[in-house]
Amino acid sequence: MADTFLNSINDPADLRKLSPEQLPQLAEELRRFIIDIVSAKEGHLGASLGVTELTIALHYVFNTPDDLLVWDVGHQAYGHKLLTGRRDKFDTNRQLDGISGFPKRSESEYDTFGTGHSSTSISAALGMAIASKLKGETEKNHIAVIGDASIASGMAFEGLNHAGVTDANLLVILNDNAIGIDPSVGALKNYLTQVKEGTNPRDNNMIKSLNFDYSGPIDGHDLPVLLKELESLKHKKGPRFLHIITTKGKGLKQAEEDQVKYHAPGKFDRLTGELLAIADDNLPPKYQDVFGLTLVELAQQNEKIIGITPAMPSGSSMKFMMEAFPDRAFDVGIAEQHAVTLAAGMATQGMIVYCNIYSTFLQRAYDQLIHDVALQNLPVIFCLDRAGLVGEDGATHHGVFDIAYLRCIPNLTVYAPLNESELRNILYTAQLGLEHPIAIRYPRGRGESTDWQKPFGKIEIGKANLLKGGTKVAILSTGTIGNNVTKALEQSDNASLFSHYDFGFIKPLDIQLLHEIFNQHEEVITIEDGCISGGFGSSICAFAAKQGYSLKIRVLGVPDTFIEQGTVAQLQHLCGIDVKSLKDIFSAY
Amino acid sequence: MADTFLNSINDPADLRKLSPEQLPQLAEELRRFIIDIVSAKEGHLGASLGVTELTIALHYVFNTPDDLLVWDVGHQAYGHKLLTGRRDKFDTNRQLDGISGFPKRSESEYDTFGTGHSSTSISAALGMAIASKLKGETEKNHIAVIGDASIASGMAFEGLNHAGVTDANLLVILNDNAIGIDPSVGALKNYLTQVKEGTNPRDNNMIKSLNFDYSGPIDGHDLPVLLKELESLKHKKGPRFLHIITTKGKGLKQAEEDQVKYHAPGKFDRLTGELLAIADDNLPPKYQDVFGLTLVELAQQNEKIIGITPAMPSGSSMKFMMEAFPDRAFDVGIAEQHAVTLAAGMATQGMIVYCNIYSTFLQRAYDQLIHDVALQNLPVIFCLDRAGLVGEDGATHHGVFDIAYLRCIPNLTVYAPLNESELRNILYTAQLGLEHPIAIRYPRGRGESTDWQKPFGKIEIGKANLLKGGTKVAILSTGTIGNNVTKALEQSDNASLFSHYDFGFIKPLDIQLLHEIFNQHEEVITIEDGCISGGFGSSICAFAAKQGYSLKIRVLGVPDTFIEQGTVAQLQHLCGIDVKSLKDIFSAY
Repeated sequence: MADTFLNSINDPADLRKLSPEQLPQLAEELRRFIIDIVSAKEGHLGASLGVTELTIALHYVFNTPDDLLVWDVGHQAYGHKLLTGRRDKFDTNRQLDGISGFPKRSESEYDTFGTGHSSTSISAALGMAIASKLKGETEKNHIAVIGDASIASGMAFEGLNHAGVTDANLLVILNDNAIGIDPSVGALKNYLTQVKEGTNPRDNNMIKSLNFDYSGPIDGHDLPVLLKELESLKHKKGPRFLHIITTKGKGLKQAEEDQVKYHAPGKFDRLTGELLAIADDNLPPKYQDVFGLTLVELAQQNEKIIGITPAMPSGSSMKFMMEAFPDRAFDVGIAEQHAVTLAAGMATQGMIVYCNIYSTFLQRAYDQLIHDVALQNLPVIFCLDRAGLVGEDGATHHGVFDIAYLRCIPNLTVYAPLNESELRNILYTAQLGLEHPIAIRYPRGRGESTDWQKPFGKIEIGKANLLKGGTKVAILSTGTIGNNVTKALEQSDNASLFSHYDFGFIKPLDIQLLHEIFNQHEEVITIEDGCISGGFGSSICAFAAKQGYSLKIRVLGVPDTFIEQGTVAQLQHLCGIDVKSLKDIFSAY
Repeated sequence: MADTFLNSINDPADLRKLSPEQLPQLAEELRRFIIDIVSAKEGHLGASLGVTELTIALHYVFNTPDDLLVWDVGHQAYGHKLLTGRRDKFDTNRQLDGISGFPKRSESEYDTFGTGHSSTSISAALGMAIASKLKGETEKNHIAVIGDASIASGMAFEGLNHAGVTDANLLVILNDNAIGIDPSVGALKNYLTQVKEGTNPRDNNMIKSLNFDYSGPIDGHDLPVLLKELESLKHKKGPRFLHIITTKGKGLKQAEEDQVKYHAPGKFDRLTGELLAIADDNLPPKYQDVFGLTLVELAQQNEKIIGITPAMPSGSSMKFMMEAFPDRAFDVGIAEQHAVTLAAGMATQGMIVYCNIYSTFLQRAYDQLIHDVALQNLPVIFCLDRAGLVGEDGATHHGVFDIAYLRCIPNLTVYAPLNESELRNILYTAQLGLEHPIAIRYPRGRGESTDWQKPFGKIEIGKANLLKGGTKVAILSTGTIGNNVTKALEQSDNASLFSHYDFGFIKPLDIQLLHEIFNQHEEVITIEDGCISGGFGSSICAFAAKQGYSLKIRVLGVPDTFIEQGTVAQLQHLCGIDVKSLKDIFSAY
């Protein structure tokens, strides 16, 4: 197939040379290009397929990059990248040194605002619009494209609430496809469904209540309608809101029919759309499944157990609990703040709440964790999936700050299991009656062993463990990165020099064992898959200084810089915490 | 005046013995009691006066504490405290070892959820309601009382959005008085005004759109109307919403007329309501005013300067900028998340944005700070007022975690001025062209000198300063707590043993000077008015361990526990960082 139009477009100026009648074909070419690359290289599929027409229409009607376009979250921005000069680099998407899977300011002037986390686009675009107004750029347009899952998050409401009382040239486009990564939830979603179906009274318009000039809903796949509507909106002023209806995965049958799976489907057949099945029967389990399956086991025995996820039933495997105990498992949508305080409210009534939030997204509920949970010492159990380096999602998604931002919180226990057995057992231990809230951090990806569903064992809170004895250097690791240490030692000739301790508990520290360690060794190495500044190693340094130990301490972990995308192994290597780097470090002793 | 009714009420069961006709007199007595105590002991006045009738009606109609009542923020809960067994202790309000100025679970079974930060009540009450339902307690009611400023915050929207799709027995009462601490802002406020004035189409109801059973608006000072409405709502099920209109400060003429000043008016004449003026002409300036007045000075010279405050124009003194440059200063309401990303959006367009947020409230925007500002390396200037121990507001409001949660963020500069001159000069320096975002933390209260408005001087980023030389022990302080060190040394006989260094820059550290310090002294003491875990001292320990210095390091600061209310001096003493404690420490050398 000769991609006549797409191949000629190096930037939106080229796009604008096409006639409106040629745009539907361009849309087909764009979809084909995305499908061809993503089928082979993996990535996010459904979101970009759903906004193909919108992407073309926006760049066709508006004068990007002078008009400023912000894509909320950014999963849907592949078409945008392809139309703004990144077609030749698109096969490096999400790879080390390649282009980012999300909009990124340093990558292109068309990426006006970096995204990755949801619901930031209205605030960012409003900030740009106010700045333009102050600079006298009164004709400039500022556009936020946001999905219906993202607009339900509190931050988006804050942006709308402010924008509605300004005269900023802001156009908010609601891309309403009734799904985020998982299907959208909540009262706003029901309201939007009524609007779409025409069952809501016409006069009752939430968006108009917030003082926006509302138009829609229109079919977001109908290019002539889109062009006409955008052209009209382009010449209006002040806060405007366009409601478009789209289908996630549009143009690939399977992606339309199984929108959750085809959000980021892995490799698939570019022509048939069939997923290339991975034989995973003999692989160790994903940590998320260890969480999800174990929670169901525990919930069967303990009726006080409740599960909460903010919009990640699939990603966190909370879906298993939602299927088994629909009354006791809650997907609250993209609402981390609410999720945490909801958990706190439940805990006041004696419920045992497992609140599962990706490490990077718990940043969204930091205050609630401190103020509503830890201050009141409510024994909520936080399960932080995607802790550490997450790989291809890159800088916006690494869960590397959690140890630092958690260990300063009084009353909170912080634990990182070494493997899936420890994760399973801490989940078991947590429902036996905790005196404090606990945060359990574990990584993306798979564990160590296929034989993981063993009988439960209770973990002693605050106790660290000697994994391997040695004569000279004590290695203190926390979490699954400890397996890299074990492998590196197995490959080292001088392994007898090294003791290796697993500090599952980052807080409280096993002070008694630390004294033994510092008394019995000549040097200490700490290793964590989190930021060095203020992290686990930092707490060991503080212990040593306070106690007057003068051993040299080498702190390994993520350096004080944002880490970009790549495979987890590549990124661990960058940080010097992969097996090979550790082996090199050890061999120098 | 014989407080016949109030004196007889030791808990709500006593209240319910009164006839409905007796309640208006009780309301007068309650108001009088609050005015009498707050006029002498200080505290929050207007909010509690505004909900006097509501407080009585709630405890009269509902079966507290079995029915669960959550007060959002909690400024308005004085009447609640007086009716629930704390009348005799109320003169210890906000004092060390006294009762808290906010609802607090450990204080009373009637305080079902501790508050202090805004907009948590809906999530917490919903959590309780879902828990009750799971426990089969189907008759139980769960009530969140929330103001119109608080309900505009994103977190409250998240709670409403979830509640609307549940069948939980949740009653949300909107206490609509058009003011938080400062007047409410935003599109939702305008919508509510239309509802009150009857100018909004009846069919257009945002709350009904979220699937709540809406009633109101009604007069929140009319006890018979309130009783009737609550009685009716008590017997309904599912999510309900009552909109009441009240006047903040109701019953005290001056408090009704100047609602901002009488939010927390300090001492005043209990009979006339006149404020007892404090002669402050000869006092050093408040840090907040150093910020506010300096910002205006800078903005006069640099038209790119913008100010943002989330709902604290008075408390942060951003009001000066709002008065001088109304187009360039923004009160965005209780919306810290939006405030930070709005600032980021403006910064992309070259604006120089001073985003002023209390340290404790920046916890609400932690993700936005990392993801929208630091990751994109946008040079936003964060001014963190109320950093350190804040005094009488207590555990919910101390700004003690900021150093720990900020210094782990790449790209971010973290600075704590020693005094008002340094604050003034860093504000000046920040608009000369920063390469990175910066967080400037400074405390509640007053500076050191009345003579502070001197010509601007540029501060060198990353440079620490020797304040006083000595022979043996190096004291490293950051921020205004350094003045305690200076005073303690002035009172010490052995001051010649001590060097004192001001580390305004917590990040980046002055590594060169640190080497000099560690090479020239025998011991190191660090002091900060923030948490020890992961704070400034911890970073010095990590430096020492990494460099192989074996000096003992003593880290002083806020211990790993939540600190309650008291005067700042009392709380500093508790933490061992007041002048006397430091003097005692120094004298032991």
